Amino acid sequence: MNEPLTLHSYWRSSAAYRVRIGLNLKGLDYGIAPVHLLQDGGRQHDPDYAAMNPQQLVPTLQHGHRTLLQSLAILEYLDEVFPAPPLLPATARERVRVRALAQLVACDIHPLNNLRVLQYLQREIGIDDTARDGWARHWMQSGLAAMEALLVEDPGTGDFCHGQTPGMADCCLVPQLYNARRFGMDLVSWPTLVRIEQACLALPAFEAARPENQPDAPPA
Amino acid sequence: MNEPLTLHSYWRSSAAYRVRIGLNLKGLDYGIAPVHLLQDGGRQHDPDYAAMNPQQLVPTLQHGHRTLLQSLAILEYLDEVFPAPPLLPATARERVRVRALAQLVACDIHPLNNLRVLQYLQREIGIDDTARDGWARHWMQSGLAAMEALLVEDPGTGDFCHGQTPGMADCCLVPQLYNARRFGMDLVSWPTLVRIEQACLALPAFEAARPENQPDAPPA
Repeated sequence: MNEPLTLHSYWRSSAAYRVRIGLNLKGLDYGIAPVHLLQDGGRQHDPDYAAMNPQQLVPTLQHGHRTLLQSLAILEYLDEVFPAPPLLPATARERVRVRALAQLVACDIHPLNNLRVLQYLQREIGIDDTARDGWARHWMQSGLAAMEALLVEDPGTGDFCHGQTPGMADCCLVPQLYNARRFGMDLVSWPTLVRIEQACLALPAFEAARPENQPDAPPA
Repeated sequence: MNEPLTLHSYWRSSAAYRVRIGLNLKGLDYGIAPVHLLQDGGRQHDPDYAAMNPQQLVPTLQHGHRTLLQSLAILEYLDEVFPAPPLLPATARERVRVRALAQLVACDIHPLNNLRVLQYLQREIGIDDTARDGWARHWMQSGLAAMEALLVEDPGTGDFCHGQTPGMADCCLVPQLYNARRFGMDLVSWPTLVRIEQACLALPAFEAARPENQPDAPPA
């Protein structure tokens, strides 16, 4: 399994951010191949990239000759191939909880707010910036409120989304809160989410994965 | 593990449809608790349901006293607790492929087209039925075209999305094609998807899970 790992990433993509955190938590060496989502109409539509990832989305992870798609599928793969430290807990009833928290973000919040969707709303539906931002905040509001409720009421919640070590749900939460701040949201209603985010960002694995610390981030 | 299984389901929800297929493939006995998504403003918003599922979405699976959320997390749980027959293949490199195909549907197509999103587009953004249907078809078009490409080019594709037995990706594909037909899409451009769908629907597990065969489906 000592084959090279290359992540096709964009500094501000929250799906790529999830995978960067996972790779860092596993202590893996990997290269970053930046895919500029806004340059020349979007480099993710370049034929070479589209041949590798027909969805023309980031991230894509190459592991040796294998091409891996979908951020949560990639995190599951990393957890199977590089088991320590684990991103998922030990029992089925714990794992279903962590996966559900991750999917709450990855299925029910983020896909509604990513770049291609916001572009479609503006270019095809014709809404203005205010309505676009209202749309984005609406789905973050409902999803994050549900996530706060699920975390507050469950004794499985610890310093992190599940227990005392970071895992797959934290890989999703932290990028989503970064996005929420980009859209000017006040996170004060979700103290548990913010507390967990701060615990995560104190760790080098999360710090190194932050958008502003990526090689393709613009100068501050 | 002989505790009762109850699925909170809506006949036409494609996320609930996925879990019905998974339960049926495992040969499990389960009860259906219908949640009418359109009645009285949506029964998923009833306080009793919202207390169980703060996202106020279907499906929810109860297994004994445990409450399980998110269709793909539930399918993973079923595969861990009731291993035979498996919904995921044996190796990490096969599993990442199947999970990515499932997530292509569950993260990048379906969340954009589900009821709450279409309602928001009409009620808050103010688009008409034509623009709403165009929106839904746009995301199905791009996602299903990518799925067809991923299936055609990979020797892992068999009678089903992966190999000769149905699995997690098929649990997602079949409900999504049902949705595509609801929106009047012509599926002729995706012969592999349709071929796999037909292989699936020939199986009793898929047949029994079809929307029109649910206890809460309206009379034909």
